[in-house]
Amino acid sequence: MMNKGNSQTPRKSDIDVRAYAEGALSGDRAMLARAITLIESQAPHHQQAAQDLLTRLMPHRRPSIRIGVTGAPGAGKSSFIDALGFYLSELSEENYQVAVLAIDPSSSISGGSILGDKTRMERLARSTKAFIRPSPTSGALGGVASKTREAIFICEAAGCNVILVETVGSGQSEIAARSMVDFFLLLLIAGAGDELQGIKKGVLELADGLLIHKADGDNKIAAQAACAQFNRVLHFLAPATKGWDTRAYTASSLTGEGIDNIWGVIQAFEGYTKQSGLFEQRRQSQMRDWLHHLVEAQLHDFFFQHPAVRSALPELEAAVMRGEVSATAAARQLLGLALR
Amino acid sequence: MMNKGNSQTPRKSDIDVRAYAEGALSGDRAMLARAITLIESQAPHHQQAAQDLLTRLMPHRRPSIRIGVTGAPGAGKSSFIDALGFYLSELSEENYQVAVLAIDPSSSISGGSILGDKTRMERLARSTKAFIRPSPTSGALGGVASKTREAIFICEAAGCNVILVETVGSGQSEIAARSMVDFFLLLLIAGAGDELQGIKKGVLELADGLLIHKADGDNKIAAQAACAQFNRVLHFLAPATKGWDTRAYTASSLTGEGIDNIWGVIQAFEGYTKQSGLFEQRRQSQMRDWLHHLVEAQLHDFFFQHPAVRSALPELEAAVMRGEVSATAAARQLLGLALR
Repeated sequence: MMNKGNSQTPRKSDIDVRAYAEGALSGDRAMLARAITLIESQAPHHQQAAQDLLTRLMPHRRPSIRIGVTGAPGAGKSSFIDALGFYLSELSEENYQVAVLAIDPSSSISGGSILGDKTRMERLARSTKAFIRPSPTSGALGGVASKTREAIFICEAAGCNVILVETVGSGQSEIAARSMVDFFLLLLIAGAGDELQGIKKGVLELADGLLIHKADGDNKIAAQAACAQFNRVLHFLAPATKGWDTRAYTASSLTGEGIDNIWGVIQAFEGYTKQSGLFEQRRQSQMRDWLHHLVEAQLHDFFFQHPAVRSALPELEAAVMRGEVSATAAARQLLGLALR
Repeated sequence: MMNKGNSQTPRKSDIDVRAYAEGALSGDRAMLARAITLIESQAPHHQQAAQDLLTRLMPHRRPSIRIGVTGAPGAGKSSFIDALGFYLSELSEENYQVAVLAIDPSSSISGGSILGDKTRMERLARSTKAFIRPSPTSGALGGVASKTREAIFICEAAGCNVILVETVGSGQSEIAARSMVDFFLLLLIAGAGDELQGIKKGVLELADGLLIHKADGDNKIAAQAACAQFNRVLHFLAPATKGWDTRAYTASSLTGEGIDNIWGVIQAFEGYTKQSGLFEQRRQSQMRDWLHHLVEAQLHDFFFQHPAVRSALPELEAAVMRGEVSATAAARQLLGLALR
């Protein structure tokens, strides 16, 4: 969609970075979408324009709260985001502008069609106070995650002050999401008995809050029981944010019950971390870590794509795995090939 | 001690690698100790001899079980290792040769004096069937951990078939230990009430077994209660080794009760993982991962010690943290400085 639009302007000189920047800063949703498409572009000739655009927009970012929303397929991430976004848009005394971004191509808002997204986030898609980024560029997670981070900055420059970053609960994507948000929410649903069994290893420890979702109708009692069980287990885990008591809550996006409460929790978290300085500290260290991550990743690529390394690696790796060559000797040999 | 011995032979030509290798292969404990000292040496002129020695020894390694033993100070790691090692040395129908290595300079066997070690591992220190490496070179964890890995190989070449790798429960060292052992044992003691509170985040998930230690006298009931509590929690965690049910056990190194049982668990683990192929798979991937780790670490050092990078980094990092420069742009600039 957006990419098709861009394919009509393939050369660097054709992109009016200034127009993109001004459009995004004025809150023009179409220009915001085009700006993110430019950032997401993998085309080499877009890289400079993308960086120029970011440089223009970075200083104009407005204060925001960035919220990661994760959970297995079926946990109801889209309907929760819709319900929370709708709730915020109705708080007329506040001027909440919500941006919804996805970290991985398989997220519910990105995996499907535009139609699918609109169906899933019905109310939010109609709201003038929300921006939903329907389809991130597919690609390696690392690449997509970096782009999501930059998309956050662009949305903030466009005036969005509640950034919801959705990720499907699958592997590295939670860690990537955690590294770019302030508050990390894990969505769960009540199952049959051992609620923790289905949670991927390490994910509980990332969360600032657990939400037992779909707590409505016949499911309400089970959700409350699961909530209590999670609270017992959480008691044993180190919190994801120092000094913050990660707890489980229940909510229903269908009835809206509990949505105000989880927003209250997020606000309390924001208040606590801002007062203690953790909010700003985490954001700064996220920026520094990201710089280092990018450097390491590119260094890695430079090295492992080096022709001499590529041709020597398989044989050396096999020899190390067979125990014939020590890894130290093999590493030294490989480094000698690329760095001279 | 050992290092003083080496300081008499500072030049490369003075080290008779062949004599070291033959001595180690014959099971000569003194030569084994000298071989490990050579491997641990940070002196640049020892590096080639160390690698030559490893190359000679690697093909002669004998089958072994590598067991990581971790736990907070006071959990009784030394007395457990002493009790297990003594138990194994008494099994006369088996020819167990035990090597005890430490992964970090602060481990109980390494932090103290030789006298201290001998006091702590009284029986094992006297055994002709055991080799205790008293004092790893201090230094950065990464460096020490790599050396421990190579020390394991040397011990295996010298005929040791039970390798105990001790690490104090502090941060990265468990992850380093986990990456070089087959079975990872977490030692705990029964405390007052919430037993899980004192365990460092992420460590439980690394363990193939938990041992509630010091289960003797007045403490026995509390240890059994803690054991049951841990088993309830372990039920909720993904196992460290696919298909293996990580459970908690009790033992006392004072009375010897439960030592045979935990050894039975380790043997069952070895049997299961060998039959399923996981044993060899893990060892091979540990070797490959280690090669990649070494390459990445040295690449990192090359880059961040590059004069141009060192002079530009602080300013760029600060600009990124202030949000003035995008990390992507900063990373590109830094990479351009070092790789041309």
